[in-house]
Amino acid sequence: MRKAVVLLSGGLDSSTAAAIAKDEGFTPCALSFSYGQRHKRELESARAVARHLGIKEHLVMSFDMGLIGGSALTSSIPVPKGAAPAEGAIPPTYVPARNTVFLAFALAWAETLEAADIFIGANVMDYSGYPDCRPEYLRAFEAMANLATKISVEGRIRFSIRAPLLHMTKAEIIRKGTGLGLDYSLTWSCYDPAASGRPCGRCDSCLYRAKGFGEAGLPDPLLL
Amino acid sequence: MRKAVVLLSGGLDSSTAAAIAKDEGFTPCALSFSYGQRHKRELESARAVARHLGIKEHLVMSFDMGLIGGSALTSSIPVPKGAAPAEGAIPPTYVPARNTVFLAFALAWAETLEAADIFIGANVMDYSGYPDCRPEYLRAFEAMANLATKISVEGRIRFSIRAPLLHMTKAEIIRKGTGLGLDYSLTWSCYDPAASGRPCGRCDSCLYRAKGFGEAGLPDPLLL
Repeated sequence: MRKAVVLLSGGLDSSTAAAIAKDEGFTPCALSFSYGQRHKRELESARAVARHLGIKEHLVMSFDMGLIGGSALTSSIPVPKGAAPAEGAIPPTYVPARNTVFLAFALAWAETLEAADIFIGANVMDYSGYPDCRPEYLRAFEAMANLATKISVEGRIRFSIRAPLLHMTKAEIIRKGTGLGLDYSLTWSCYDPAASGRPCGRCDSCLYRAKGFGEAGLPDPLLL
Repeated sequence: MRKAVVLLSGGLDSSTAAAIAKDEGFTPCALSFSYGQRHKRELESARAVARHLGIKEHLVMSFDMGLIGGSALTSSIPVPKGAAPAEGAIPPTYVPARNTVFLAFALAWAETLEAADIFIGANVMDYSGYPDCRPEYLRAFEAMANLATKISVEGRIRFSIRAPLLHMTKAEIIRKGTGLGLDYSLTWSCYDPAASGRPCGRCDSCLYRAKGFGEAGLPDPLLL
């Protein structure tokens, strides 16, 4: 069984990407980050999803992106509530260079695991606002990755950045994951959980999730 | 004064790169990493060099590359002693994707500082063994960086990865830094310090340093 590194935040998209990697016959190795995010609650979900999918290797890297700042997810900048971001605008929940940092660690781990495939739940339809989710960014990262590492330069591996959800709507993602038996009650999307531990229901991520379940014609099991 | 992010390990090369950034009229913002390296001693040197150069912003990011492994610098793999690596061979002191991880954090910080320039002490002459020091790698990182970030996609900044030492020999680097008034007694190169706290004198990094000072016709002030 070939290993693949899967970036697993514990959200809808990355959990579905992990289920797809498994369905494609890979042994998924999950990589999560405790990076100073406001919604650290998602790490519990990452652990639960990893267990649910029978993932044996789950690495959590810890560092503090809050020292760098510049984002509503890691600093005191408020998380917008109640409306999706304007078309083409980059929302304040953007974290500077976050996917580049995450993929850099994924590349390092993939090299030691000798895993050619790195899965990321990037989704260009819903998150058109995030520059580091776009196909041209992912291709540029892949090109860089193949010049960066001992194993690729020696010709033993050609790294592939895999974004199977890239052109899917949230509803298509939910239907796909449901078809693969993924239990979405284990996942977490909210950027700004209430003190009660419930999703806020009003941040972009909650709104996209609700819209996705609505369009898929399914109830969100997290809210049952 | 324009800010520039400078990767500062506390070694010869990165300290010289920081002095060059300052000499070019930038306000250098130093970025160092506590990443589980065997030679954590270098961080003391990074702090001393930053003070010496009058650098006001010095950020140290902490994480554990030892969890990923695969390197003599972060695991129990022995550091080679007594001979430089064979021509074209990648030495066991290579850390998987290390410069990609370091540059990813530099990019994140550069975005929040609105700094277009990122300095790295990469040196293709001495470290031809490290794939992530080569010019083609640095160009690919730069191309990726300009697709990755809000500030570049909005057209407000074009990031430039600056490697002013790339084609210099160690002796040329030492002469350059000496000319800029850099105090090399503050720098640290050894990968595997003795229990006494002295450089081992036999790892690749110590050997390259000794060769460099020898060819420059200068004593190494760290050993005086």
